[in-house]
Amino acid sequence: MSKKTKVNAAILIIGNEILSGRTQDTNTSTLAIWLNSIGVKVNEVRVIPDVEKIIVNTLNILRKENDYVFTTGGIGPTHDDITAESVSKAFGVKYEIHKEAFKILEAYYNLGEFNEGRQKMVWMPENAVLILNPTSGAPGFGIGNVFCLPGVPSILKSMLGGLKNRIVGGEPILSLTISLKTVESEIASSLTKVQDQNKDVEIGSYPFFHAGKLGVSIVMRSENQSKIDNCNLQILKFVKEKKIEVVDR
Amino acid sequence: MSKKTKVNAAILIIGNEILSGRTQDTNTSTLAIWLNSIGVKVNEVRVIPDVEKIIVNTLNILRKENDYVFTTGGIGPTHDDITAESVSKAFGVKYEIHKEAFKILEAYYNLGEFNEGRQKMVWMPENAVLILNPTSGAPGFGIGNVFCLPGVPSILKSMLGGLKNRIVGGEPILSLTISLKTVESEIASSLTKVQDQNKDVEIGSYPFFHAGKLGVSIVMRSENQSKIDNCNLQILKFVKEKKIEVVDR
Repeated sequence: MSKKTKVNAAILIIGNEILSGRTQDTNTSTLAIWLNSIGVKVNEVRVIPDVEKIIVNTLNILRKENDYVFTTGGIGPTHDDITAESVSKAFGVKYEIHKEAFKILEAYYNLGEFNEGRQKMVWMPENAVLILNPTSGAPGFGIGNVFCLPGVPSILKSMLGGLKNRIVGGEPILSLTISLKTVESEIASSLTKVQDQNKDVEIGSYPFFHAGKLGVSIVMRSENQSKIDNCNLQILKFVKEKKIEVVDR
Repeated sequence: MSKKTKVNAAILIIGNEILSGRTQDTNTSTLAIWLNSIGVKVNEVRVIPDVEKIIVNTLNILRKENDYVFTTGGIGPTHDDITAESVSKAFGVKYEIHKEAFKILEAYYNLGEFNEGRQKMVWMPENAVLILNPTSGAPGFGIGNVFCLPGVPSILKSMLGGLKNRIVGGEPILSLTISLKTVESEIASSLTKVQDQNKDVEIGSYPFFHAGKLGVSIVMRSENQSKIDNCNLQILKFVKEKKIEVVDR
């Protein structure tokens, strides 16, 4: 892919345990921060159950609408791990033993330990490109613009380094945060004016209650640092006029 | 709505701060656990940006496909809070001052404090039904099968009690968890057999690494307790045969 100014992605979280509330997803935040740092903006996140038809349909929508799709979950050894087979069906390719993955896991486990359950983890879409796993052996994989990662947060994190060179990002998305000892309603109209005058900067306003402190964080995001700086000056101007204290957050 | 056996919902998280990774969503888990307890299963979660067209389109898909939709975020006083106006457009109704909400906030604030920013929070879709907010005054609202809640987790939690009577759930979704000192690959094939013999029970397998302990939690979910119990007996049978230790988690 040639370098584009704006590159976007979707995250597809696959797993009944997130939908039941049993497990708190943290992979979205990990992936989004990492993607932002390499110039990829997350457009959308979907959480769906371990149901083949739903995975196939959702993936086929997301991979057409986004430059990249990152899936998490469902690539382990048990019956509810159906991501690799579903991705194969979404792409209309064979679901087969990946020879390189087989060799990696054969070497990873002690003699006799590479059992039937573990061998399931080397079944992947035809021509998948491995994403190496320095934590627990079993690799993820990429096919087309789709990258399939595990659901366990610590393992997922350890695999991102090896994935970086395969993602072509756009301009990095820069951000600046200013935190104020105030409430949103005190600054709402001033902030609206600043947003109206700075259409290219995405300005977000987020109340916080943290460690006994109450306030509002204003986040400015853009690919252009000088536009952010200009926006920040305008905010600091009304902050000074209103005698609002700037605080650490 | 008459009582149905299966009732489902979608959760729509509205907010750039989740997509950028700045804020870790916890409302999905809060809502999912609460919904399960009143017999509503979460089918899907989507996280989308503060963009009117995307909110309108996504909401119109989700409200047709699900018995209920719960939105979080975007109902505060600032320029990036566009949920109420977007929901009005999705339903094709007027976006107007809600008289009851106006009275509530007028009484909530001290004289002179009910300023322009705060008055934005009483603009809602025509005929919206309020969801009272015991924490910070500003109510959420429901329209049709859609319920709009704030993004701040503590405030959202405090509003669920008042919402309970407006949701008609189906059979409660029961679950049983058994945690084992093993790895997934050791039990994968046995567990597949149990799943094949218990199609009505959703069996999930989740590895954990927690407080120095490593193991697998098996979660059985169904509306039918005796089906769960039967499934559990079959799991305990192979666990005993394999001499796997059952542990607390």
